Formats: sequence, C-alpha cells, structure tokens
Amino acid sequence: MISCDDKKVDIKSESEKLMQLSRDWSLTAATGNVDSIISYWADDAVILTPGAPPIRGISSIRDYVAGAVNTPGFKISWVPLSADVSESGDMGYIFEENEVTMNDSSGKPSTTYNKGITIWKKQSDGNWKNVVDAWNARPAPEK
Amino acid sequence: MISCDDKKVDIKSESEKLMQLSRDWSLTAATGNVDSIISYWADDAVILTPGAPPIRGISSIRDYVAGAVNTPGFKISWVPLSADVSESGDMGYIFEENEVTMNDSSGKPSTTYNKGITIWKKQSDGNWKNVVDAWNARPAPEK
Repeated sequence: MISCDDKKVDIKSESEKLMQLSRDWSLTAATGNVDSIISYWADDAVILTPGAPPIRGISSIRDYVAGAVNTPGFKISWVPLSADVSESGDMGYIFEENEVTMNDSSGKPSTTYNKGITIWKKQSDGNWKNVVDAWNARPAPEK
Repeated sequence: MISCDDKKVDIKSESEKLMQLSRDWSLTAATGNVDSIISYWADDAVILTPGAPPIRGISSIRDYVAGAVNTPGFKISWVPLSADVSESGDMGYIFEENEVTMNDSSGKPSTTYNKGITIWKKQSDGNWKNVVDAWNARPAPEK
C-alpha cells in the first residue's frame, strides 16, 4: 500500500534550496544580463517596489529590470536571512536584505538599504520561481 | 483504503477564508483595541515597515501597535485584493492595499497609501495567523 507519507516533503532541504536560489540570483543580478535575471520570476510574478504601482507579469518585469540595469552606476546585491516552506513543498518564502547603488544627480554612487520578503512557488517542472517580490527601506548598517 | 485525496485541501475555500480574515482584521483595526488587533498575528510574526528594522515577535508588535493607535489622528484600513494558498493548506498569502491617516505637524489629517503582502500560516488549532506583514508606498488613488 502506498501511504501519504511517501509524498512527505523535506522542508529543511527545500528551504535550503530557496536560500541557495536567492544567493545564485544575487550573483546573476550582478551580471546585468536581463534574460538571466528575469528567469527567476514566474510568468505571473508581482513586484511591489516602493512608491509605485505593482509591477505585474514577466513582460512588465523585463522592462523594469532593463531600466534598472541601464541606470548609471546601478548595482544590486542581496542575502537571504531565513526561509520557510509549506508542508506540501509547493510554496515558500525568504526574508532578505539588499543594497542598491545608483549614481546621484552629481554622478556620485549613492547606496540605499532595504529589507524584503520574496514568495516562491514550485512550478510543474519542479523548479522554484519567485511569485512575489516586495521590499522597503531599512536603516543603513553601521560601518 | 484511505487515499491521500481524503486530505485534499479546498484551496479556493481557504483563500476565501484568508480574504475574509483580512476584512475582519481591518474592521478590528478601526476599534483601536490593541489586544484584539494583535490577536491576528502569530507569536513569531515579523512586520516589515518602511524605514525601520524588522519588528519581530508579538511583544514588539504589541508595542508597535500601541504606539500607532495612540498617535494623534491615527486611522488605518485595508482591503484584500487576492489570496493564494499552498496545496497543503498550511501557508498562504494575500495582496492588500491600505491607507493610513495621521495628523501632520499642524494637526491636520494626512493620508498615505500603501500596497502590501501578508503571509499566513495555519496554526495547530486550525486558525490562520499572520506571520509576515510587509508594505510600501503606492501612488495616491485619483479622486
């Protein structure tokens, strides 16, 4: 007899997968390659960026990312802090901290610091994709 | 034979439960009753509010909410836009829009508009509790 336990998800292992995906994605973001960067989002993903309406769907996300990587002095990087996954292993989320640098109006690099939450769904092919990406400002870390 | 399908979760019904919880919580927020308001958060919930470090755990959340409801002219309300729930029915999230009014320095009411994402986990007693509550600014709606 096949029991339901055979389908049991290893939450810890799936959470670590999400943490690693977050790290990989940050390295990918540093390349500035738009196709590679947007491959982490699901087709119906939503970005909640401060001060703007939601950015819905991969086509709008592509435009947003292309605009960002073409901004003078643009750099972004982030680290995952912790992750959690549902019992069914199809939904999870990650707490992250990021920093974003752009040139200010005088051409000098200016960095802002954010904290964020990303929500992920496992797709039918078994790959995790980001479905919600939201952040807001945090105080600058002490140097 | 008991099949795994007997445990199948009604995603639509659970999503609607989350939508209704969000609406109920907004009405509760209007009462200003701190105990009632914080009863929607899990003990280990995290709030990501713009410009501040994360607010972690129900004790810090209580202090935060008490400070908010005692702010002159403070009012908050929100509406859920859509919700999704994991296959196992133990994790879900809601897109929301809120508006927050406080008196400005001259004592006049000033309203800010936000969009947010809340993540929920079903507790061992079967009740959904909020575990992550994050928002950032959206443009003011046209009147």
